[in-house]
Amino acid sequence: MRIDIITVVPGLLESPFAHSIMKRAQDKGLLEVHVHNLRDFTPYKHAQVDDYQFGGGAGMVMMPEPLALCIESFQQQRTYDEIIYMTPDGQRFEQKIANRLSMKGNLMIICGHYKGIDERIREHYITMEISIGDYVLSGGELAAAVVVDAVGRLLPGVLNDETSALFDSFQDDLLAPPVYTRPADFRGWKVPDELLSGDPKIVDAWRQDKALERTQQRRPDLLERHD
Amino acid sequence: MRIDIITVVPGLLESPFAHSIMKRAQDKGLLEVHVHNLRDFTPYKHAQVDDYQFGGGAGMVMMPEPLALCIESFQQQRTYDEIIYMTPDGQRFEQKIANRLSMKGNLMIICGHYKGIDERIREHYITMEISIGDYVLSGGELAAAVVVDAVGRLLPGVLNDETSALFDSFQDDLLAPPVYTRPADFRGWKVPDELLSGDPKIVDAWRQDKALERTQQRRPDLLERHD
Repeated sequence: MRIDIITVVPGLLESPFAHSIMKRAQDKGLLEVHVHNLRDFTPYKHAQVDDYQFGGGAGMVMMPEPLALCIESFQQQRTYDEIIYMTPDGQRFEQKIANRLSMKGNLMIICGHYKGIDERIREHYITMEISIGDYVLSGGELAAAVVVDAVGRLLPGVLNDETSALFDSFQDDLLAPPVYTRPADFRGWKVPDELLSGDPKIVDAWRQDKALERTQQRRPDLLERHD
Repeated sequence: MRIDIITVVPGLLESPFAHSIMKRAQDKGLLEVHVHNLRDFTPYKHAQVDDYQFGGGAGMVMMPEPLALCIESFQQQRTYDEIIYMTPDGQRFEQKIANRLSMKGNLMIICGHYKGIDERIREHYITMEISIGDYVLSGGELAAAVVVDAVGRLLPGVLNDETSALFDSFQDDLLAPPVYTRPADFRGWKVPDELLSGDPKIVDAWRQDKALERTQQRRPDLLERHD
């Protein structure tokens, strides 16, 4: 899978893909992440990419021309399955979307900054608008990093144990059960007997119970989706 | 405001706070972000911080002792308003929580990695569990960065124009209206006449209409919250 990220702050994304699981995915050749500076594509002087918004008001808007030239330049090199714009008013990102995107070949992700990008780019170039949650960030960069991470870890061969992602929260609309490791007694707080039983049936039943209990307590809405 | 982030992958968070608005917030002395390596606090050999989970199964669990020692060491230096654990089964992060956290003094954020942290730490040390959305990430690091960004930009003086954040999506349970900048005619696609009218009343009415229309189309659930 190849992901091209377009941003006015490429430096911000230097470290997130250079460590841990995203690094391993790239080292193994399973994922290519390319971060591009939008300013390299602007036809304007002084690398201008934003301007005041029509109608007035606080905050700059990213101009249509640099974005159009940038997107078209990449489209000449390969076909993109989706051209994604990270925006708080987009479709809410959730595990099922991550699963679906992990089966694509080439993705382009546009990061907004300031007040966002000119609406005409959204209408004529963007194929998918994604929000990672109901909150506002300084820009789309961290949101793009979140999408790349959530999608990248699902690629076959990226996680050490391929079965691992299957037991994550949300994959079956249940939250994950509590986890414990050594020591069995930590400052008088003990690990549940069921997990120490050595009987896989007892362990599985306990985990199933706890996953359901936790979901009922914290996120009953996830269970309602099955009704 | 001071934020201490505890992680086993401190390098992953090097660039997100070194650019753009988060850098400016720190340069101005409005925000201090300190990223700490959990391995510096472990009493075990080989900087061990994780171990197999009781009951068996894929994925490692972060051990209670290093986390307890780390949290206690910071608590001896100052009082924390919240000790936050980033986890997909936590309370869903949204703008109102960002607003509330932006009024705190000291926050500690624990990033899980692998299968998460030992449940006993969650029960006895963590005061707030936050999820940035219904999807699973490689670790809590990017989630922590998202929270720091969403909260940090709300601190008075961080954004150039302090009124700017007030017009963001979600602050009034409405999505933001479309934005446009030069040129007024881009490849035949024109900016709406209302925004070019030069009449603030017409502009405001258009923006209010479009914000409502966009919210009705994309996120009717936001409007229902007022019923």
